[in-house]
Amino acid sequence: MILVNGECRSHIEISDRGFQYGDGLFETIAVTNGQPVFIGRHIDRLEAGCRRLYIPFPSTELLTFEAKKLCQHSSKAVLKMILTRGSGGRGYRQPDVIQTTRVLSLHPFPDYPDIYKVQGITALFCDTRLGLNPGLAGIKHLNRLEQILARAEWTNPDIQEGIMLDMNEHVIEGTMTNLFYVKNDTLYTSSLALAGVAGIMRGIIMAMSYDYGFSVIEHTFTKDELLSADEVFVCNSIVGIWPIKQIATTCFSVGERTRQLQTWLTQFQNEAISGGF
Amino acid sequence: MILVNGECRSHIEISDRGFQYGDGLFETIAVTNGQPVFIGRHIDRLEAGCRRLYIPFPSTELLTFEAKKLCQHSSKAVLKMILTRGSGGRGYRQPDVIQTTRVLSLHPFPDYPDIYKVQGITALFCDTRLGLNPGLAGIKHLNRLEQILARAEWTNPDIQEGIMLDMNEHVIEGTMTNLFYVKNDTLYTSSLALAGVAGIMRGIIMAMSYDYGFSVIEHTFTKDELLSADEVFVCNSIVGIWPIKQIATTCFSVGERTRQLQTWLTQFQNEAISGGF
Repeated sequence: MILVNGECRSHIEISDRGFQYGDGLFETIAVTNGQPVFIGRHIDRLEAGCRRLYIPFPSTELLTFEAKKLCQHSSKAVLKMILTRGSGGRGYRQPDVIQTTRVLSLHPFPDYPDIYKVQGITALFCDTRLGLNPGLAGIKHLNRLEQILARAEWTNPDIQEGIMLDMNEHVIEGTMTNLFYVKNDTLYTSSLALAGVAGIMRGIIMAMSYDYGFSVIEHTFTKDELLSADEVFVCNSIVGIWPIKQIATTCFSVGERTRQLQTWLTQFQNEAISGGF
Repeated sequence: MILVNGECRSHIEISDRGFQYGDGLFETIAVTNGQPVFIGRHIDRLEAGCRRLYIPFPSTELLTFEAKKLCQHSSKAVLKMILTRGSGGRGYRQPDVIQTTRVLSLHPFPDYPDIYKVQGITALFCDTRLGLNPGLAGIKHLNRLEQILARAEWTNPDIQEGIMLDMNEHVIEGTMTNLFYVKNDTLYTSSLALAGVAGIMRGIIMAMSYDYGFSVIEHTFTKDELLSADEVFVCNSIVGIWPIKQIATTCFSVGERTRQLQTWLTQFQNEAISGGF
């Protein structure tokens, strides 16, 4: 089921700038027991993205209403929300009056085996590099060719994620996840000043860690630093936390810190679902 | 009028990866006397872009047929051709079988005054920087947020183009044009190894210059080098060659080399139109 500006439709105008230029933003949200989980955070991020791209933000109330309406009968699903700059303008120039397009769609929850969460996943390093772009870094926008080229690098079903570096050979994130590692009891994640998406789950894990008195450092790091970590994991709003058991030929144990964060996260998610936020 | 996979339609599936991720390519083509000008070159570039993005290319014959059919009754127009990776796949992962979507649409020719060609245009330097991305550099793909943010920097109608630099402060191109300058009787243009679009008109101007024994150098250069040029011009398939008479506070004369290239280009375009290629 798809809602386009509040109406059931499966099509979009060809003139929509989302289609013409990737001129928009999106969110991918887990749905559990009829609730879009962490909906408030996702809508806040859409609003922040709209500010950065000068797209008029529809309204928190409207988006929350439509999201909850679409999800109410789903026990388990994925909700995708897209906002675009609508139609019009001349070429790249935006129209004088922007009518933001909003598209909310519901999709089956992916059938990832539970053992990914328990035993961890296997990853590789992608050859595709993330471009450096401070103007777009951090935003979950619709220009996703880099991720598509990176994800096209492997078809082996034993590999679950690809880790992407930027042009300076700094490790940034997975193709669809953010990345963390633990070294000497400190949690590290990539700085996203020049590339990458500032994921909702990444933000929750960082805030949760601070709350529990566990320090998190955002910095730039190389492949070698990552491979010498004690624990590594990736995260996003759909999979939660997946430990990494292997990157290329280097193996990792699923460590105590990762387990602890998984436990805290499950608890926090359950509170969000029962509280409807 | 719009043709989607050969049928008259004004909509596209929301699931199309062009809309979901900007997963595709496009061409903007001048139409004169019922002919899409330089159609062969534009379709060749689409094919080259498809190879770089692993999108199955429909066929030169089919695209040429549809383009000519759509344009046959237009004396003056703009033809836009979009190819996307179609629908399907899981997230960024492309579908196992890709059904390329092709969208051909006809638009009014923009009403730029003739004096832009004769007396030149005024440009500014944009603050928005082009990301560095060798994997995508040169391709006319659908990920165009950088150009949109750059074009949103000015609304003053006396400014016709914005010149974009990359993150290393090298001058790359205009928001919708490629850039050339003349210094001591040599023609220079930006290297597009890390950023920018390798325009059809840029390629024609370079080839034409070589043919007439006039050397062209592709290199990296700064704002200061550009501002010390004898002549500067921008080009694309719709406007042809526009001399630049002013960038920020620096003025330029419309020089002999620019005039010569304009004359050669008009001649070459007329041959293309009468020859139907």
